[in-house]
Amino acid sequence: MKVQRGDTGKAVVVLSGGMDSTVCATLAVREYGAENIGALHVSYGQRTAAREKQAFAAVAERLGIQTRLAVETPFFRAIGGSALTDANIAVPDAGELIGHEIPVTYVPFRNAHLLAMAVSWAEVLGASKIYIGAVAQDSSGYPDCRPEFYEAYNLAVRRGTKAGDIEVVTPLIALRKHEIVSLGLELGAPFDLTWSCYSREDCACGVCDSCVLRLRAFEGAGAVDPVPYAPRLAGHD
Amino acid sequence: MKVQRGDTGKAVVVLSGGMDSTVCATLAVREYGAENIGALHVSYGQRTAAREKQAFAAVAERLGIQTRLAVETPFFRAIGGSALTDANIAVPDAGELIGHEIPVTYVPFRNAHLLAMAVSWAEVLGASKIYIGAVAQDSSGYPDCRPEFYEAYNLAVRRGTKAGDIEVVTPLIALRKHEIVSLGLELGAPFDLTWSCYSREDCACGVCDSCVLRLRAFEGAGAVDPVPYAPRLAGHD
Repeated sequence: MKVQRGDTGKAVVVLSGGMDSTVCATLAVREYGAENIGALHVSYGQRTAAREKQAFAAVAERLGIQTRLAVETPFFRAIGGSALTDANIAVPDAGELIGHEIPVTYVPFRNAHLLAMAVSWAEVLGASKIYIGAVAQDSSGYPDCRPEFYEAYNLAVRRGTKAGDIEVVTPLIALRKHEIVSLGLELGAPFDLTWSCYSREDCACGVCDSCVLRLRAFEGAGAVDPVPYAPRLAGHD
Repeated sequence: MKVQRGDTGKAVVVLSGGMDSTVCATLAVREYGAENIGALHVSYGQRTAAREKQAFAAVAERLGIQTRLAVETPFFRAIGGSALTDANIAVPDAGELIGHEIPVTYVPFRNAHLLAMAVSWAEVLGASKIYIGAVAQDSSGYPDCRPEFYEAYNLAVRRGTKAGDIEVVTPLIALRKHEIVSLGLELGAPFDLTWSCYSREDCACGVCDSCVLRLRAFEGAGAVDPVPYAPRLAGHD
């Protein structure tokens, strides 16, 4: 365990059940021990919520994390404004625009909600670290993945909590997607149980932003993604 | 309207239906016009949630605010750790301790959740201001009422949102409770429709922290609180 002085020895991991959060959780388990980790999952009304929750439970089980909290935040659907939570906005196929502008799949200020839940739960559990698998490479698309956002949020956490000693850590933030895959393979992250697709729940669509970035990441790491993909239709590409 | 340049002319108000948030909403309506305000109410599983939601609707109606969003965050009960959301922890009578230590009614990091919702909704509505009735006088009790907390949170909002120009404002933060009552009387805030009691829903208990601070505030302003209180039992005081 790499726990430092002043650390309570307990941590909360935000675990969607996707590729990045699973590698992040695997890392947290190595550093704190599964028995000292609380895994938090949030269903925010996204299209593939049921499939992601299933991935969360399977990943937590494989990693040996028994302390789990799965919460629902139906208000994101009421707020709307994102292709992930509003059935009237289609999830686009990945285009040339990946990384160049904020996509319609942006859920307004979503990570601030995930962090608020993690911090509230950490206060009750007595945890002093919160692991979140944010990746700066995504930050050109999602403003709440920027390292500067986490820096500011940590200041708010220090000032706004009873304990005052809770810190959000982002161990993957500086990595490229293929490096995350390599790290996960090295740590034995259960990639086979993860779910990343934005639009389908039976098998991954292979064409949304999330699928395309994931497939590229595995390719870049010289590995094969173990999850099943839908067969490509002729002429789709 | 006192809208400044760069302002979209729309604002979101966090409205619990209590005394402070009602004065804050009345102020926002004066500055932006009721038609440019969205009123946000959050039921976070607190004991008096139903009564507060009723107060929210009545206050918004009186103020002429038609754009309303009432959301529920049942996860606070799952997280627990507060007398307001955990039936196993009693709401204490106000003692000598008001303002001297963090009370058991503290809901871990609650205001960060309220702000996250307000920011997400503001992004969708195109609002550039968020009004919240936080009061620094409460801050010795609740860490998420400190002015420094809002300063840090605003930095996170600027860095973590698509628009980047949303600002949380806290017009009551420097006021004392009796000054808030005086301001509310001056603005014509609908105090008669508000609800502040932590423990009862039929009439205010008069003995919880929230009731005692409210009664003292009206007394300090030389006014009479228009909401009904439970009769004091002989020997209770």
